[in-house]
Amino acid sequence: MKYHCMEDKLQEVLSKIGYPKDLRQLPVEQLPQVCEAVRQFIIDQISVHPGHFASSLGAIELTVALHYVYNTPDDRLVWDVGHQAYAHKVLTGRREQFATLRQKGGLRGFPFPAESEYDTFSAGHASNSISAALGMAVANHLSGDKRKVVAIIGDASISGGLAFEGLNNASSQPNDLLIVLNDNKMAIDNNVGALYHYLLKITTSERYNQMRYRAYRTLRKHRLMSDGLRRALIRFTNAVKSLFSHRQNIFEGLDIRYFGPVDGHDVVKLVHILRKIKDMKGPKMLHVCTIKGKGFAPAEDQATIWHAPGKFNPTTGERIKEDTTGMPPKFQDVFGQTMVELAERDKRIVGITPAMPTGCSLNLMMERFPGRAFDVGIAEEHAVTFSGGLAKEGKIPFCNIYSSFMQRAIDEVIHDVALMNLHVVFCLDRAGLVGADGPTHHGAFDLAFFRVIPNMIVASPRNEHWLRKLMYTAATANETGPWCIRYPRGRGSIVDWQCALETVPVGKGYCVRASEEGHTAILSLGPIGVEAEKAIALSGRDVALYDMVFCKPLDTALLQDVFARFQRVITVEDGSVAGGFGSAILEEANRQGYHGEIIPLGLPDKFVEQGTCSELYSLCGIDAESISKCIKG
Amino acid sequence: MKYHCMEDKLQEVLSKIGYPKDLRQLPVEQLPQVCEAVRQFIIDQISVHPGHFASSLGAIELTVALHYVYNTPDDRLVWDVGHQAYAHKVLTGRREQFATLRQKGGLRGFPFPAESEYDTFSAGHASNSISAALGMAVANHLSGDKRKVVAIIGDASISGGLAFEGLNNASSQPNDLLIVLNDNKMAIDNNVGALYHYLLKITTSERYNQMRYRAYRTLRKHRLMSDGLRRALIRFTNAVKSLFSHRQNIFEGLDIRYFGPVDGHDVVKLVHILRKIKDMKGPKMLHVCTIKGKGFAPAEDQATIWHAPGKFNPTTGERIKEDTTGMPPKFQDVFGQTMVELAERDKRIVGITPAMPTGCSLNLMMERFPGRAFDVGIAEEHAVTFSGGLAKEGKIPFCNIYSSFMQRAIDEVIHDVALMNLHVVFCLDRAGLVGADGPTHHGAFDLAFFRVIPNMIVASPRNEHWLRKLMYTAATANETGPWCIRYPRGRGSIVDWQCALETVPVGKGYCVRASEEGHTAILSLGPIGVEAEKAIALSGRDVALYDMVFCKPLDTALLQDVFARFQRVITVEDGSVAGGFGSAILEEANRQGYHGEIIPLGLPDKFVEQGTCSELYSLCGIDAESISKCIKG
Repeated sequence: MKYHCMEDKLQEVLSKIGYPKDLRQLPVEQLPQVCEAVRQFIIDQISVHPGHFASSLGAIELTVALHYVYNTPDDRLVWDVGHQAYAHKVLTGRREQFATLRQKGGLRGFPFPAESEYDTFSAGHASNSISAALGMAVANHLSGDKRKVVAIIGDASISGGLAFEGLNNASSQPNDLLIVLNDNKMAIDNNVGALYHYLLKITTSERYNQMRYRAYRTLRKHRLMSDGLRRALIRFTNAVKSLFSHRQNIFEGLDIRYFGPVDGHDVVKLVHILRKIKDMKGPKMLHVCTIKGKGFAPAEDQATIWHAPGKFNPTTGERIKEDTTGMPPKFQDVFGQTMVELAERDKRIVGITPAMPTGCSLNLMMERFPGRAFDVGIAEEHAVTFSGGLAKEGKIPFCNIYSSFMQRAIDEVIHDVALMNLHVVFCLDRAGLVGADGPTHHGAFDLAFFRVIPNMIVASPRNEHWLRKLMYTAATANETGPWCIRYPRGRGSIVDWQCALETVPVGKGYCVRASEEGHTAILSLGPIGVEAEKAIALSGRDVALYDMVFCKPLDTALLQDVFARFQRVITVEDGSVAGGFGSAILEEANRQGYHGEIIPLGLPDKFVEQGTCSELYSLCGIDAESISKCIKG
Repeated sequence: MKYHCMEDKLQEVLSKIGYPKDLRQLPVEQLPQVCEAVRQFIIDQISVHPGHFASSLGAIELTVALHYVYNTPDDRLVWDVGHQAYAHKVLTGRREQFATLRQKGGLRGFPFPAESEYDTFSAGHASNSISAALGMAVANHLSGDKRKVVAIIGDASISGGLAFEGLNNASSQPNDLLIVLNDNKMAIDNNVGALYHYLLKITTSERYNQMRYRAYRTLRKHRLMSDGLRRALIRFTNAVKSLFSHRQNIFEGLDIRYFGPVDGHDVVKLVHILRKIKDMKGPKMLHVCTIKGKGFAPAEDQATIWHAPGKFNPTTGERIKEDTTGMPPKFQDVFGQTMVELAERDKRIVGITPAMPTGCSLNLMMERFPGRAFDVGIAEEHAVTFSGGLAKEGKIPFCNIYSSFMQRAIDEVIHDVALMNLHVVFCLDRAGLVGADGPTHHGAFDLAFFRVIPNMIVASPRNEHWLRKLMYTAATANETGPWCIRYPRGRGSIVDWQCALETVPVGKGYCVRASEEGHTAILSLGPIGVEAEKAIALSGRDVALYDMVFCKPLDTALLQDVFARFQRVITVEDGSVAGGFGSAILEEANRQGYHGEIIPLGLPDKFVEQGTCSELYSLCGIDAESISKCIKG
């Protein structure tokens, strides 16, 4: 079976569209062909330059229709999570650079204003588009600018609290914001939550919307339709609809006029509808139904796998799997498998993830203990406070949140967990540099944030064995309060990872490599310590290496010994050097009156770009070679 | 006119109720008298021991009904924001201690588990109750416990994103959670947002609910009502209702069964309804309408003023105003007045507050420039991202959020502002120790969090003049990115505060007091520097004092000079000493190779209790006397 073929004719169509203004020269009938050309281009490109795939395929018709109807870049499109925005990049002057996507110095995987004037706002973390677009719309209103602002948000992103706060405020200020709900019934994993079920039901009652639309058109033709009358009609028919569908329209409840649902793959119809509602006053929502992976059969069938599939054969649809024989496991899989083991041993263990069951491998526990592992959707704040409630009633929640997404729930960690000293174990996956996803996704700040929270224990495992031991220690600890265990994206360093589960002493580091000389000691935290070990070998010097394991509490006895014996201490961490692990060491060194030299290595005080992890480690001076240079002086 | 009188008979009623079990011995007919007794007790107490007043008066009947119907503490009541929970404290064994409310070592102003087994969760920050209660309900379900869990949330708190995430998840797991919506049409200030208007409308259609309830009762009497049928009836009548009221039921849309609205001051009726719905399966909401300040006429009339009125005469309703003649102004008022001046000079200036227009004095700008100052309701995340959108389109937003509430929006500060280097000025009121509100409200962590965010400028004014100058500098800065200006609760130190608006150099500190001796220098940040100055006088030593003004960027040249000339440096900050200003100085000292002694003073690595600010400064060792001892010692 052949899934894909980029014909010359389509290539020619695409080659004529540099920018949306070129698109707007075409007759509307040609748009389906443009969509097909964009689709084939993206399939071609992503098959060799891996990126987010299924979401982008689903949003092609919507993207073409928006740029066709709206006068971009003067009108503003605000994308919520850039997964859906590849077609947008292709059509806004970036087709030629598309092959550099997600590479160092190349196009970013998400919209970003510094890259293009068509990218209006940062779009790496979900649920921010409505608030950002509302701010723009209100600013334009104040300035007397007539430009339009459109937020495009997925059905998964709209479940985030921030999106709701935006929706709740949308009708409070004068604005003509359009919110497009790109509803593909999917987060990265399957969607959850009541709103999701609500959207499923609402789409089954399309005939009422069509009825309403036809009635509206007829009345308008005969000039019988005032704005007030139209609103009344919308409300009336929505009420009728909810009567039949047994659902209430949430958005109308929030004073946002609701239109839809419409077929998001009928580009001509989309253009038609967008033209109709473009100049309407007040905030409004257009509900568009799309299919994740649309136009590439394997992706339509298995959207989660094809969310970011890696390289694949565009013709056969075969994913080109990396040969991982002999490789160490991914940290996430060690987490996932260890969760199952812990849950088997202790009934109190429960697992929580906000929309990342596959990404953090909690899906293993969800399969084995479906009642005890919870995917709460894109809702980091809820994930934390819900964990607090579970802990309060005697459960031991392991709440797994990517480091950079955990920034969403810092207050909940403080107020709903640490303040009550509740026994919740926060597992921060994707801590430190994450590579191609870039600055929005680097987990740079968690050490700096978590180590200042009272009652919090903060640890990072050097390798797979230590991750298992730390998880086991956190699970079996008596009356300890909150824990934070942070580990990076990707693979560890031990192929034979399934060690026995045993506890480790809390707040104790250990010596990885002793030194006779007593000149330089390296203090490392987490897997970056493996780079430090390589660095010592590279340098050829007699340097000691200590894995501190815990950023808090620090092993003050070990440090006393180190400070007594070494003139120079290098700290190495995969996190912000300001405020982080190195800063904690400086505080303790000051307390102990150490007067030797301390060199803190880690992420700089700026947002680190995208690239491969090894490129970025080198950029930040925490790869083996840079550390080795630092050792030598 | 006489508003209040605590009769002996009522005192006697109250004296017999130590705990809810005593309450449950009474016949239901006596409950109105109990409510009256509790009300008079609270009026008496709060008139001399200031606290949150109007909210607590509004929730008395609800509190009595809940403890009467539910088997507390085995059943769990989860209060959202403790403002409403005074009656709860009075009825759960804490009447005798009530006079210690909000004092050092006394009862806390909010529910807190360490204080009583009846307090199930921390309740200082809004919107967490649904998620916490859901966690408890799910935990109990897993353990096979039959206890009931009830969340009680106000109509202002429910607008927070966290509450929505909880609502959206409430129907996802098996649970019988009851959410009581205590709807008094008020936040601390007037409520805003679409949900608020929605609730206003929904309550105007009470007759449909009554109709529904009567129909349900009739059918049930004749045993014609199955569970499925009942649900269908609810949906049907809700749809009919929305047809007439032109509103849709949002909660039913989220799969939460909705009951109400009911009169929240008819305690007998509340008991009746709670008994009916107590054993129903699945998540449900009871919408209760109450009046803020109920039963004390002046508070009913002016609920915002009586939110936390200070001392007052309970008989006449006269507030006992502090004589503030000759006192310096509150920082918040300097902020509010300066905003008006800035807005007069520059059209681009806009102001944003999440539900604290009176608390942060943005109400001054809201009166003067109603279209340019926005109260977005309890929605810190939205406040920040909305500010980002405004800045992106050329406005200069001053976004004022209390320091501890800003913890809710750290990710938005990073992702939606700092990453794009947008010119948003975050003004963090209530930074540092806040006094009687205690550990949930101390602004302990903002310096540690904000100083590690790239592009961020972090400053704190020593006094009123500096606040004005910093605001003016931030407003007129060219192409600077995000700013954070933090200042504490309460008054400054300069009576004649209205200095001319002029800019100050970014990243520059200055010498407050020079020293000939060259032994000890104090580096201070913010108004705590005034304490440091007193400390020097107290100590009688020749000590230098530098106000650094900026925590980031640090004045490295000034520090170079200090490190060259002084053997000992004391840093003083009103914030967490771990990771904060002192830590930033340590990092720079290490960079410059300083080998003198550095003593960082500030808040310890634990949650600081409640008390007067001067008691707490002393406790933390940052009052003049403690600093003086440190100088000498």
